[in-house]
Amino acid sequence: MSSVRPLFVVAGIGNGTGTGAATARLFAKSGYRVALISRGPEYLNKPATEISQAGGEVLIPIHIAGYGVWKPFLDITEDEVRESIETNILAAFAFAREALLEFTKLELETANEGGVAGNARKRGTLIFTGATASIRGNVLTSAFSASKFGIRALSQSLAKEFAKKNIHYRLMRTAIITDRTKSQRNNPSWEADQDVRLDPDSIAKSYLHLVEQDSSAWTWEIDLRPAHEKW
Amino acid sequence: MSSVRPLFVVAGIGNGTGTGAATARLFAKSGYRVALISRGPEYLNKPATEISQAGGEVLIPIHIAGYGVWKPFLDITEDEVRESIETNILAAFAFAREALLEFTKLELETANEGGVAGNARKRGTLIFTGATASIRGNVLTSAFSASKFGIRALSQSLAKEFAKKNIHYRLMRTAIITDRTKSQRNNPSWEADQDVRLDPDSIAKSYLHLVEQDSSAWTWEIDLRPAHEKW
Amino acid sequence: MSSVRPLFVVAGIGNGTGTGAATARLFAKSGYRVALISRGPEYLNKPATEISQAGGEVLIPIHIAGYGVWKPFLDITEDEVRESIETNILAAFAFAREALLEFTKLELETANEGGVAGNARKRGTLIFTGATASIRGNVLTSAFSASKFGIRALSQSLAKEFAKKNIHYRLMRTAIITDRTKSQRNNPSWEADQDVRLDPDSIAKSYLHLVEQDSSAWTWEIDLRPAHEKW
Amino acid sequence: MSSVRPLFVVAGIGNGTGTGAATARLFAKSGYRVALISRGPEYLNKPATEISQAGGEVLIPIHIAGYGVWKPFLDITEDEVRESIETNILAAFAFAREALLEFTKLELETANEGGVAGNARKRGTLIFTGATASIRGNVLTSAFSASKFGIRALSQSLAKEFAKKNIHYRLMRTAIITDRTKSQRNNPSWEADQDVRLDPDSIAKSYLHLVEQDSSAWTWEIDLRPAHEKW
Repeated sequence: MSSVRPLFVVAGIGNGTGTGAATARLFAKSGYRVALISRGPEYLNKPATEISQAGGEVLIPIHIAGYGVWKPFLDITEDEVRESIETNILAAFAFAREALLEFTKLELETANEGGVAGNARKRGTLIFTGATASIRGNVLTSAFSASKFGIRALSQSLAKEFAKKNIHYRLMRTAIITDRTKSQRNNPSWEADQDVRLDPDSIAKSYLHLVEQDSSAWTWEIDLRPAHEKW
Repeated sequence: MSSVRPLFVVAGIGNGTGTGAATARLFAKSGYRVALISRGPEYLNKPATEISQAGGEVLIPIHIAGYGVWKPFLDITEDEVRESIETNILAAFAFAREALLEFTKLELETANEGGVAGNARKRGTLIFTGATASIRGNVLTSAFSASKFGIRALSQSLAKEFAKKNIHYRLMRTAIITDRTKSQRNNPSWEADQDVRLDPDSIAKSYLHLVEQDSSAWTWEIDLRPAHEKW
Repeated sequence: MSSVRPLFVVAGIGNGTGTGAATARLFAKSGYRVALISRGPEYLNKPATEISQAGGEVLIPIHIAGYGVWKPFLDITEDEVRESIETNILAAFAFAREALLEFTKLELETANEGGVAGNARKRGTLIFTGATASIRGNVLTSAFSASKFGIRALSQSLAKEFAKKNIHYRLMRTAIITDRTKSQRNNPSWEADQDVRLDPDSIAKSYLHLVEQDSSAWTWEIDLRPAHEKW
Repeated sequence: MSSVRPLFVVAGIGNGTGTGAATARLFAKSGYRVALISRGPEYLNKPATEISQAGGEVLIPIHIAGYGVWKPFLDITEDEVRESIETNILAAFAFAREALLEFTKLELETANEGGVAGNARKRGTLIFTGATASIRGNVLTSAFSASKFGIRALSQSLAKEFAKKNIHYRLMRTAIITDRTKSQRNNPSWEADQDVRLDPDSIAKSYLHLVEQDSSAWTWEIDLRPAHEKW
């Protein structure tokens, strides 16, 4: 790893209780500098404070818009479809573009972990978080799923273009998780049973693993689910 | 089948040599009235004439825009992404909406073919034509594939919502074909070998089969490829 | 089509009320000679009579064994696993081998249907019937699903080897259907509702379509389900 | 984690240079007791010595047979198909049975890692190593792929049955990797380029991650590939 501490950017910190915030905390604790992007400045104070307390350094608290539509198909207006695909797909394209331009400027990391010199080498890792709607459409999800499918197509295309060609050492991956929203329910007994709901802290551990994988064995897409979930 | 001749609408007649035109000709010959939608009026004359000569009746020659981008990711502008997803995904949502509203007004078809009364019953069939880019992203296809994935998500969502619920008897399906563009190459020896390229007339036969399937055995998605294609 | 009437072989005619028998009847009516393979001679009389009455010609009434296990994993014995994979996977390999050896002796069919000379050309079609267990394992299905997955692997391998290489013009396809057993329930009201159960006669129509597809647009795998099925 | 050191069993240690041996070394170094199963006793000395030197404890050096067939379909004999599916599928069923019976006797692990009490709780983890042939059949792979598909069906069925039902807290997962054999080529320049071949040490890290995942976010199947592999 280069002498400069690596930077971890979270686009979509949410309300500070979800995957983005949990991942930010874990990466901060693991030695990364952390940059947060939120849909509004009011969401940034709490995670920024937590990260600072965990020894992390918060860099660029900016914000973006997010948008989701879950409605019967005939109730969805053209504007809602447009807003869903623009705020999701266009934002993913824009973010990926900026990230890739930055990655090209970075020095190649050459870890020396486990005695295998340089094995973790890469210039950067780009992870998109999906949902069950990323892999199949369903009743009520036409607009949301069209957006999530679009982002999955983007991440597959980036993986093919940037992992193999002469602009080496970069990595793009899709992490498909189910029902992030569940983690935001207010149901104490449900929350207490870790076997039935995705815990953002557990997701964060898998993200850290993805970022630290050796370039000889990268994961393409992962699908995380609670042990007792029926799907 | 009701006494009124069924209507077949082709959105995207292309230049008259592709899947849309071939399907229009086959359905006209099989007793359907045919409506054509093209990206420009100049494309409508030839297929409209052919269909009239085949005994078909051409109803609404209107036009829509189409758009495709195949570029390295970092060369694609935000406007190109926007235009690709809007002209493709938004158009598919708009078309599906109009089609579904019309379907709800139709009488339930009750075929009596093969001794199985009513077995082919449905109110309408909606088919989206995909591409290999509908099922995986690749180098150069980030924007195109994001659009095609989005349409696939739409068609899966519609299939779930409209096939099963109390608004019965409707059918949505995705037909995934590869490389329609190939059929537009100008390569006589390649064109002569039907085992290596998708023939629009052959695709049309599978579309007619989809439309005529019994409601007890509908196909979800189909993937058509030339016998000798390596994929 | 050559002047000799084509032969259609059904391996697994079942009790005469399922997919095998319905397919045999439809192919007989469509001009094919039909050969039946059953797990016992007692199953052959009824379909053989029906096919003769439909103008078909029944050729080789022989029999094979069939076997299925649906049990909790820890209740399945080694012998049951062995019998399940042998009677299913080994039988499929053996049948495919005989079919392919026969196909190589056949003249190339050159249909002249729809004005496209030679477009349906092939030497033969081999269709395997699957189940939902062909595409995912589930509680109680470990042994059954291992067999069905194995047959799917075989059919994909055959499709790759025999469709593309210099032994051209042959076609192998998997047709995945759900719950054939449902068609054997004895539930009149359920049977009367064609939107909720797979009708063998409807499946047979799709099989005939597969056999008649042009070599420029072959289907890889198809997934047939009743319109109202939730899956 | 309970006070007793957890046991890690490797079925198929190979020649000591592959995934099995690398995984055994990493788990030994991470505090596990290790048991090795090999196709012959001659393969056990080297990894057993390495593991002892790494502070690990080797428990049950026994052996099993392994078998693979890669041939054109018509060259494969019935005996070869039988041996391939028996040594692979039957062995996987037998091994899974023994492992599950042992798991039921174990105390529930309740890790307290990262401040999330009990989050990693499970009774055991069962990982099957696949290949590209686990997810698609191809030319030359009919018999091998039928076996690998069968094992995948088994692991999916076990995941559904044992992760969710009242015999909780167990985990089965399939790890799909490509071309283990590549790691056994003798090509120094190829071996030196970690971006083009799967490194068993890198695979081992992902296995350790799977075993340590929290029960709130288990991975279903993973697909590991070298960064520069084209697939």
